Amino acid sequence: MALKTAEQYYSSLRQLNPTVYVLGEKVENAIDHPLIKGQVAGVAQTYALAQDPEGKELLVAESRLIGGEVSRFLRLHESVDDLLVKVKMLRFLSQRIGTCYMRCTGMDASNAIGVVTYEVDKKYDTNYHERFLNYLKYVQQNDLVIWSGLTDVKGDRSLRPSAQADPDMYLHIVDKTKDGIIVRGAKLHQSGSLCAHEGLIMPTREMREGDKDYAVCFATPVDAEGIIHVYGRGTLEARALEGIDLGNVEFSKFCPLVIFDNVFVPWEKVFLCGEYEFAGELVRTFGDYHRQSHGGCKSGVGDILVGAAAAIAEYNGIPNISHINAKLTEMIKTCQTMYGCCIASSVEGKKSDSGIYLVDSVLANTSKLYEGKEYHEVIRLLVEIAGGLVADLPSEKDLHNPEIGHFIEKYLKGVADVPTEDRMRMFRLIEKLAFETRDIVSNIHGGGSPEAHRMSLLRDTDLEPKKKLARKLAGIKEKD
Amino acid sequence: MALKTAEQYYSSLRQLNPTVYVLGEKVENAIDHPLIKGQVAGVAQTYALAQDPEGKELLVAESRLIGGEVSRFLRLHESVDDLLVKVKMLRFLSQRIGTCYMRCTGMDASNAIGVVTYEVDKKYDTNYHERFLNYLKYVQQNDLVIWSGLTDVKGDRSLRPSAQADPDMYLHIVDKTKDGIIVRGAKLHQSGSLCAHEGLIMPTREMREGDKDYAVCFATPVDAEGIIHVYGRGTLEARALEGIDLGNVEFSKFCPLVIFDNVFVPWEKVFLCGEYEFAGELVRTFGDYHRQSHGGCKSGVGDILVGAAAAIAEYNGIPNISHINAKLTEMIKTCQTMYGCCIASSVEGKKSDSGIYLVDSVLANTSKLYEGKEYHEVIRLLVEIAGGLVADLPSEKDLHNPEIGHFIEKYLKGVADVPTEDRMRMFRLIEKLAFETRDIVSNIHGGGSPEAHRMSLLRDTDLEPKKKLARKLAGIKEKD
Amino acid sequence: MALKTAEQYYSSLRQLNPTVYVLGEKVENAIDHPLIKGQVAGVAQTYALAQDPEGKELLVAESRLIGGEVSRFLRLHESVDDLLVKVKMLRFLSQRIGTCYMRCTGMDASNAIGVVTYEVDKKYDTNYHERFLNYLKYVQQNDLVIWSGLTDVKGDRSLRPSAQADPDMYLHIVDKTKDGIIVRGAKLHQSGSLCAHEGLIMPTREMREGDKDYAVCFATPVDAEGIIHVYGRGTLEARALEGIDLGNVEFSKFCPLVIFDNVFVPWEKVFLCGEYEFAGELVRTFGDYHRQSHGGCKSGVGDILVGAAAAIAEYNGIPNISHINAKLTEMIKTCQTMYGCCIASSVEGKKSDSGIYLVDSVLANTSKLYEGKEYHEVIRLLVEIAGGLVADLPSEKDLHNPEIGHFIEKYLKGVADVPTEDRMRMFRLIEKLAFETRDIVSNIHGGGSPEAHRMSLLRDTDLEPKKKLARKLAGIKEKD
Amino acid sequence: MALKTAEQYYSSLRQLNPTVYVLGEKVENAIDHPLIKGQVAGVAQTYALAQDPEGKELLVAESRLIGGEVSRFLRLHESVDDLLVKVKMLRFLSQRIGTCYMRCTGMDASNAIGVVTYEVDKKYDTNYHERFLNYLKYVQQNDLVIWSGLTDVKGDRSLRPSAQADPDMYLHIVDKTKDGIIVRGAKLHQSGSLCAHEGLIMPTREMREGDKDYAVCFATPVDAEGIIHVYGRGTLEARALEGIDLGNVEFSKFCPLVIFDNVFVPWEKVFLCGEYEFAGELVRTFGDYHRQSHGGCKSGVGDILVGAAAAIAEYNGIPNISHINAKLTEMIKTCQTMYGCCIASSVEGKKSDSGIYLVDSVLANTSKLYEGKEYHEVIRLLVEIAGGLVADLPSEKDLHNPEIGHFIEKYLKGVADVPTEDRMRMFRLIEKLAFETRDIVSNIHGGGSPEAHRMSLLRDTDLEPKKKLARKLAGIKEKD
Repeated sequence: MALKTAEQYYSSLRQLNPTVYVLGEKVENAIDHPLIKGQVAGVAQTYALAQDPEGKELLVAESRLIGGEVSRFLRLHESVDDLLVKVKMLRFLSQRIGTCYMRCTGMDASNAIGVVTYEVDKKYDTNYHERFLNYLKYVQQNDLVIWSGLTDVKGDRSLRPSAQADPDMYLHIVDKTKDGIIVRGAKLHQSGSLCAHEGLIMPTREMREGDKDYAVCFATPVDAEGIIHVYGRGTLEARALEGIDLGNVEFSKFCPLVIFDNVFVPWEKVFLCGEYEFAGELVRTFGDYHRQSHGGCKSGVGDILVGAAAAIAEYNGIPNISHINAKLTEMIKTCQTMYGCCIASSVEGKKSDSGIYLVDSVLANTSKLYEGKEYHEVIRLLVEIAGGLVADLPSEKDLHNPEIGHFIEKYLKGVADVPTEDRMRMFRLIEKLAFETRDIVSNIHGGGSPEAHRMSLLRDTDLEPKKKLARKLAGIKEKD
Repeated sequence: MALKTAEQYYSSLRQLNPTVYVLGEKVENAIDHPLIKGQVAGVAQTYALAQDPEGKELLVAESRLIGGEVSRFLRLHESVDDLLVKVKMLRFLSQRIGTCYMRCTGMDASNAIGVVTYEVDKKYDTNYHERFLNYLKYVQQNDLVIWSGLTDVKGDRSLRPSAQADPDMYLHIVDKTKDGIIVRGAKLHQSGSLCAHEGLIMPTREMREGDKDYAVCFATPVDAEGIIHVYGRGTLEARALEGIDLGNVEFSKFCPLVIFDNVFVPWEKVFLCGEYEFAGELVRTFGDYHRQSHGGCKSGVGDILVGAAAAIAEYNGIPNISHINAKLTEMIKTCQTMYGCCIASSVEGKKSDSGIYLVDSVLANTSKLYEGKEYHEVIRLLVEIAGGLVADLPSEKDLHNPEIGHFIEKYLKGVADVPTEDRMRMFRLIEKLAFETRDIVSNIHGGGSPEAHRMSLLRDTDLEPKKKLARKLAGIKEKD
Repeated sequence: MALKTAEQYYSSLRQLNPTVYVLGEKVENAIDHPLIKGQVAGVAQTYALAQDPEGKELLVAESRLIGGEVSRFLRLHESVDDLLVKVKMLRFLSQRIGTCYMRCTGMDASNAIGVVTYEVDKKYDTNYHERFLNYLKYVQQNDLVIWSGLTDVKGDRSLRPSAQADPDMYLHIVDKTKDGIIVRGAKLHQSGSLCAHEGLIMPTREMREGDKDYAVCFATPVDAEGIIHVYGRGTLEARALEGIDLGNVEFSKFCPLVIFDNVFVPWEKVFLCGEYEFAGELVRTFGDYHRQSHGGCKSGVGDILVGAAAAIAEYNGIPNISHINAKLTEMIKTCQTMYGCCIASSVEGKKSDSGIYLVDSVLANTSKLYEGKEYHEVIRLLVEIAGGLVADLPSEKDLHNPEIGHFIEKYLKGVADVPTEDRMRMFRLIEKLAFETRDIVSNIHGGGSPEAHRMSLLRDTDLEPKKKLARKLAGIKEKD
Repeated sequence: MALKTAEQYYSSLRQLNPTVYVLGEKVENAIDHPLIKGQVAGVAQTYALAQDPEGKELLVAESRLIGGEVSRFLRLHESVDDLLVKVKMLRFLSQRIGTCYMRCTGMDASNAIGVVTYEVDKKYDTNYHERFLNYLKYVQQNDLVIWSGLTDVKGDRSLRPSAQADPDMYLHIVDKTKDGIIVRGAKLHQSGSLCAHEGLIMPTREMREGDKDYAVCFATPVDAEGIIHVYGRGTLEARALEGIDLGNVEFSKFCPLVIFDNVFVPWEKVFLCGEYEFAGELVRTFGDYHRQSHGGCKSGVGDILVGAAAAIAEYNGIPNISHINAKLTEMIKTCQTMYGCCIASSVEGKKSDSGIYLVDSVLANTSKLYEGKEYHEVIRLLVEIAGGLVADLPSEKDLHNPEIGHFIEKYLKGVADVPTEDRMRMFRLIEKLAFETRDIVSNIHGGGSPEAHRMSLLRDTDLEPKKKLARKLAGIKEKD
């Protein structure tokens, strides 16, 4: 049973019992909570579409580890073609979900851990890589969802992990026993943690010798004892709580703070434990994979942004105006830029010693920089095209109110052949696309902040050959 | 009693009885409704600060019409200096309110109507200007709040008012009696209508002869029979409804749709009635004033954006990092650009035939274009500086929950000397500043869309002398 | 003899006898003229580097037409891999030449004519495709350089070709005989025409029925009777004329106006003759190929821009300053964006009916749009990093003047270990890279103007599926 | 004789005898040299236009020092109105000259020295201020041109002046006698030095105690013994040397390196001598004045850029195309932004202790940042509108060649009613405007580099009150 249906996915989640708080209240059956269920529905689509012929091409592939078909989200990249299909798969899914389905993080974490555990073993004669492959077999066999926990709460950002007033500001090992390790700390922005069965937890930065206990990587069930998921508030919650005016009628996103209050992890699920000099490589490898994932994902959401802009221009009666066309062109340009750089980052991918394929870092970070800045302008252009009703559309409840419903119907009408309700729905979708914080802030800060991308881009560019080329053209003799 | 206190302002509002719907429900005492009261509090500050010595300098000035001190919001601009003080007043208020206090619309409408009624009378020997001055005396004597209603719902935007399938898509005169006129239609995005006592209603575009009945301008009480205010939904409503996690703890904004269902207006409050060729001038004059108002207002909000960015950088422990400084510089640059162009637009202001001073249109529109585009980048920079907690901060209710409150307190701590709660409050403020639709969309679409500003800028620039200068330098002989 | 050496290339050029005017003078042996020879030297590199092991990998490939190795510039694209290698070849060459070597135009023209002649033949049962393949065999066998002539002088741009006051503003057929056709007109911006043996002349826009005589495509020797090459002036000519302060010490660019004064073309070299409805497809196909070529080329020049910026920062003593790094990052980002989108445009390439591979138009045009705008900012950043000496560096003649040479040596010194002359050379290179019009204007207008790229991008994007995805997410029912 | 005519200006220059090298040759009567005379002609316009009624309003004002009318370039700012007129004067002149007339540097230096000498005297009881006022009387009485020398050659930019391997990399005092001081060093980018009678020489940066000898400010005749002017090369020199294809037919710019080889300065012309802590204030005060000057100047050049763009669009036959209008709008927007911020920087100017008015630094630097970046885009837009002929227009010599002149006449024709020669002239002007290095690089590096402007902007913004406003709105209690 390597491929679950969406229904089986829902059943499997119901067998878990995570500790969850939402808006100050402890919550049972969290996956049915109105502020949570939208993203579970999105993840369920990654199962449902794997059954669809078009989706299967992208979402399903052969496993070398267990034989037979498994979800691409649980596989290691074995070729440049795998890297290409990854980008296309993410675009395909985002086009159909329009928000986060969070499984890229597990895929990116798995590949990064695969690459780096191989390096660690080579240096220290440890057996992390084998442990990790065994773990991967287990998740493939059970077709699980993995969430990846990276971002620590960080406390005072000018201080290293071990220099913080409170040692728990970065997740760390507080004890080791013969059976495993005990960890403490907290991870922020854990997109969709409650949609997952398992988490892969990694360091959030490079570490030095003094930070040894912070150099830890492991897997854990989402409902392990001591793990607490605390819902982080977003915009538009009143809509989800009322079940109306949703914009994206089925799918949404949430990002809890996940607290690790002395959580036990058995040795077979520990993949790094004190080898501090590999923490940086792990997070950078994950980072490059994940920045590429963003490009695939957000160019797919970009197709929705462009489609919504074109649709609302039509509904407003101005589909073929010169300045609207100029704006659509600019929107498409940015989305294709993100996509194009990610495709190129696959083509220029290289095989690591572990056999797993790495993406080209400079191109992946280039793509992400557009997401961080110009994509925000894409969203602004969408709002500019749509008009002011993105800000202050009356509720669907007003449309259905017996006293004023006919006024709403009458006055929010656009072109003759589009029902008022359709136009209202399109405005609501645009509002959601443009103002849902969990999505928008992810454009800027997901996969690291733009400053991190700039640093990666420059660090991974070799300036010496370029300087040499310039000196040659200028007629400058090289020194011996 | 030309200057009310804030308390008197509240009392006076309670004597009105507007028809209001919020989320499908008819609402009494709307000004106390959690989704409405935040902006009433903002407007109340324009009364309170008029009593404050620093504020009085800007907010209060002598009236030629009634003698004695009146609110600057109710005055006509009598000099370049008045235009300068206007910009400074708006910046001052925005710095203290951080969102919309909506009185600029009434001021801008009054001045535009003052300018244009004078022109109409000159052509048609009507007495609109006198009527309007009488009306202005009344609002000055009673220190009222005026809202201005401009934006029609517009239906199919490719069609002129009189060509729409439904003739009511632009507000128009449906009947005239010996006592006055009857109007029908609806105005969108009516920022803070319920904070006002009176509305000044104007056409939203130029008109042609066939659109004569749409060329109408008048004043009306906010609670006239037939006027219905329908609340337009925004982003962070769950917070306001719960009274927690507000961000801006006192002030907020709302923008209803205001329906005019056969509303009667007596002749003495009618200031344009069919003189269609003046509709364009009226809306353009208002537009120029209002685009300048935006520059004053939003550079003041910009001071908050910059201050919040600097504060959160400090709370996060990275106050003096080179890339943070570069971002702060960029933010300040854009805000000062908006402000600087508005100041210049005052300096280059000119006296109209009515004696009322006009602003320089090109500079006012230049300022507004930065608000429409680069200011969105200012907001993005704020989010980039602040970090991911803008997206998904747990609730203050989690902070106060007895079981997990200590975790929130512990893990959301930044630098040592700043309480966790203060840091959370700053993140909430940033969330509000960056994601409150009624504010953000106003940056883009308030005072017309950027396309309208571009058109105004080009239309009001005389290219001929510039071409002549170029030809001269190039040595091209002028033709006779 | 399918692959010439650089020397053989020079000899073969000397056997031609084109009519050339430079600055008002008729010139013999034009390829030795100081304003011409720099680009001949660049093209010679495309021969020399084909002998170099690294270069050969990219520059040489097997010909299906004649068997054996031929220059990639003369081949048709037989696979996605060919499209990928093309981009890499162009980047490789630009890194070594730093300016235009013009052979991409011939390659792009050949492939476009290959694709479209196949289509024309299918419709009209003509034999253009076979003619063209025969012609291609000839150029492959003789390893010739082809220039492609596209841009007509256009006259009044608001008028179609056949509507111009002077019918010659677009090149057209003025007569047909049993042996061939006679053409008249003029082509602008003919980069490096005198470096070529042959030209492929094409229409510059789509045509309608009335423009039939303008729908003409043919090959011609560069020195055919009636062809006149008139040198177009650039910046920095005084340097070339004096042979000093050159910046790029070996290579340069020129772009003549080429006049066709009743030029005869034999039928076997005519590839389109009146089939007006294919003119648009021909120019668009060429355009897409050529915009992709630009991305490969200019990302290679971009490596020089980045290298020169890094080198001069070092020479000035500020190699590791935070703001310099930020600027270098931005420069690299734009160059990689252009490159990445071109690589992706190859990957998403498709086989045409002719068997020749087409690039993805949207991605190729996306890349070109960055060259048109952001690349200009890359150049500005280079100047910003370098400092004011880009503007006004004294001459090498001053350095060698016996009276003041020691002052120049002394005062233009930067860091201790870099000779003043090297620093001066680097500034000169930067001046050339930033201010040589023929190069810089090509960034903006080469391969069509940005407006053309925007139109192509939007025209080749299908908005319907995107609108449908948006409607689905918004919960809007599709109409039957 | 406080106001010279243009002829008197020329005569007075001819009485000077500066040491000048151009392209490795010593040159007598330099002001007649084809590479020099264009800027002398520009400066002569500042005399000629002072006689013109419109120009006189701006260029001439009453002197408190000597009584009667003097050139505004030689006056101290006595009011906000003076600061406003300054901006308008510079725009007026640039509109008529289209390039640099260099007198703003003398005006800005005079005012800065006036402000700072007053401060120094107050602290050290020196009499620099009186000396300087006496000097100013002299230049006013003789209506001289002052050039200001600021930018040292700087050597290794990571080292302070006194830490350089060669102590002369910043100009410094090498000896003091009872009569005066001896200075050595060199100043770069000395726009138009040979158009001046006198120079005001200042430090280029703040100094520390060890740099005492570098803290020197003085006046000197342009032809003092030991001063050598070495011409710095620009782009379009071949044209000036041939006297054809000039673009701007009368005016041009040059920027020599000026070497001070043990130059003697009498005490009465020394205005700072070792008071190192005032060097920073002096350069910053000059900087703020000069950045404002740039805004006035370059918005005037911007009028030419806009005019040339509009004219060439007309000549090409596409004057009213939507995308051309959008580009013109963007061009105007940036120019008005620079202008608007400078006007505001005047309005917010403040009186210094010396009585001289200072500009608002933040607004002046804001304006300059647009010149440094967005103005480069304005130029790109001009090239984009104009088309490829900016790059490679045949020479006027080709137009007049008897064999091919008729072809040039025919094929370079645009719309019917514009002579080919006029169109060619407009393209030449655009080439000059877009590619003359001495002008373009000044946009970026004039008045300091953009990084300096960013630093000034942030340093002169008080963030504390802004943070306080943000904390107040967020409901954060202030600490006691």
